Amino acid sequence: MHILVIGAAGMVGRKLTAAILAGVLARPVSRMTLVDIVEPVAHEAPFPMTTLSADLSAPGVAQQLIATRPDLIFHLAAIVSGEAEADFDKGYAINLDGTRHLFDAIRHESLSAPYCPRLVFTSSIAVFGTPLPPAIQDDMAHTPLTSYGTQKAICELLLADYSRRGFFDGIGIRLPTIVVRPGAPNKAASGFFSGIIREPLNGIETVLPVDDSVRHWFASPRSAVGFLVLASSIDTTPLGQRRNLTMPGLSATIAEELAALERFGGTRALGLVRREHDPVISRIVAGWPQNFDARRALDLGFRAETNFDDIVRAHIEDEMGGTVR
Amino acid sequence: MHILVIGAAGMVGRKLTAAILAGVLARPVSRMTLVDIVEPVAHEAPFPMTTLSADLSAPGVAQQLIATRPDLIFHLAAIVSGEAEADFDKGYAINLDGTRHLFDAIRHESLSAPYCPRLVFTSSIAVFGTPLPPAIQDDMAHTPLTSYGTQKAICELLLADYSRRGFFDGIGIRLPTIVVRPGAPNKAASGFFSGIIREPLNGIETVLPVDDSVRHWFASPRSAVGFLVLASSIDTTPLGQRRNLTMPGLSATIAEELAALERFGGTRALGLVRREHDPVISRIVAGWPQNFDARRALDLGFRAETNFDDIVRAHIEDEMGGTVR
Repeated sequence: MHILVIGAAGMVGRKLTAAILAGVLARPVSRMTLVDIVEPVAHEAPFPMTTLSADLSAPGVAQQLIATRPDLIFHLAAIVSGEAEADFDKGYAINLDGTRHLFDAIRHESLSAPYCPRLVFTSSIAVFGTPLPPAIQDDMAHTPLTSYGTQKAICELLLADYSRRGFFDGIGIRLPTIVVRPGAPNKAASGFFSGIIREPLNGIETVLPVDDSVRHWFASPRSAVGFLVLASSIDTTPLGQRRNLTMPGLSATIAEELAALERFGGTRALGLVRREHDPVISRIVAGWPQNFDARRALDLGFRAETNFDDIVRAHIEDEMGGTVR
Repeated sequence: MHILVIGAAGMVGRKLTAAILAGVLARPVSRMTLVDIVEPVAHEAPFPMTTLSADLSAPGVAQQLIATRPDLIFHLAAIVSGEAEADFDKGYAINLDGTRHLFDAIRHESLSAPYCPRLVFTSSIAVFGTPLPPAIQDDMAHTPLTSYGTQKAICELLLADYSRRGFFDGIGIRLPTIVVRPGAPNKAASGFFSGIIREPLNGIETVLPVDDSVRHWFASPRSAVGFLVLASSIDTTPLGQRRNLTMPGLSATIAEELAALERFGGTRALGLVRREHDPVISRIVAGWPQNFDARRALDLGFRAETNFDDIVRAHIEDEMGGTVR
């Protein structure tokens, strides 16, 4: 099977690529194409691997990618929330038009000769917006409070309609906030959720801008890859017309997160978390979902961590060689 | 105030125009522009009235319409459900891209100099798809089962995001199935809901293709105009970011509809309804919503009929000169 990963240079894309190379898929892989706005890193592989720098929103790019008729497509590429909010045109061009170009390229390919690839799309819990119930059900309306969330919600609708029409076999998965993100701190409003684990475990001070009582919805990068792998192979028949799924996750408070930090890093790590209330970040986070009842995904076999210790342990194993220095 | 009506040649657009000319709006009207794919009929008016044939999906058309900076815009234009399903490209071009062109034209106009018109958009209960609860709440997810419903759901999301950004002051209203539609029978799957009142009251035989137990969600053309008028003047602040509303309606069965027909047209009219089961139409109708709990719209003052007699009476008064021959 020929696999196309769009957004392959991002954190999830790189981990997914590594997992596929490690043999996580049941079906044999014959070819991989890795695409991103910056050219993804090439890997040693027992099959042909192509890496490409390409902008899905540019004319003709989607057609070129699809002309090779990949059997399995992961569409992970997106302008992130903050940038899509700051740059209205760019967010809609990449997150909406780019996705639609991809979907239409598949549609046109399927009209010329039988073709119906599996398409896995990463959506977001940003499709939901306050006022929200304490635990969000699978049939909750999408009332996003950002342009990013709006673009993801629209792509979900397109994915369902194009799948219903038989142009591809699509599945959209709404990822929880992924913690612990490896690498350097970024400017995302959600960055501190990872930072208050990652930095102290590396002996670096970090800032916590919200109250300990703040509750949010989490899964590890390892779980995110697991979701993508299962979504790539699952029988989509039981989904019916409802092709988009809230992934399972862990609903936890900052206090629970800090308790896990202390268990793995001791009081020394905990002492590196400096409380510095930020009213802007606090207000943004107050509008975010806190908990989901992700029954449909659980029934289909999707699994995430059930406590914060498992999330921290995955980070230590996958990013720190298994030990806290 | 300058009013732009897009989709002015349709049934609701014509009735809305007549209501505006009859003075239904509180704010004084200084100008009206009526647009449709076929040029709308011009009217005598105490202010300048322009009628235009234009295709919103064609380049530059939306900019031309918005360059005159209308204060109030009714966007009623759409390819109907059956045609959007039969012609995928045309449905997306008109119902999605045409609407987006309009929204972007307003956005660009608002970026050049302060401009924030009220925009009233007619959405549809086709944004909902089975499985559905017996009475659909305001926060029910949109899982449309047609391309038309998908396009309406996407436009709702865009309307909310563009309003949140301050490009216009938008409100989307999900219309019930409008009965009794005047004029000749059409090929819409829902046509019989109007036909079994309209034709027998005119002494003409008609076919009922579904069971008497079928339940659906209705409002009269008069109520539809009332929704648009209220949506054009209402304070949108209480809507928050949830700019799209399910309109109130009447949940009624075919049996209730036929009982109303008999009360107004007697056994003679009832006898003109010929039962001829159509499995295709029955299956389509089985996927449609049956009832809503339209609490938000009711709280805002939107009102529809509460029994089928009032729907039939509105038809007799508005379309038959007040009497059944």
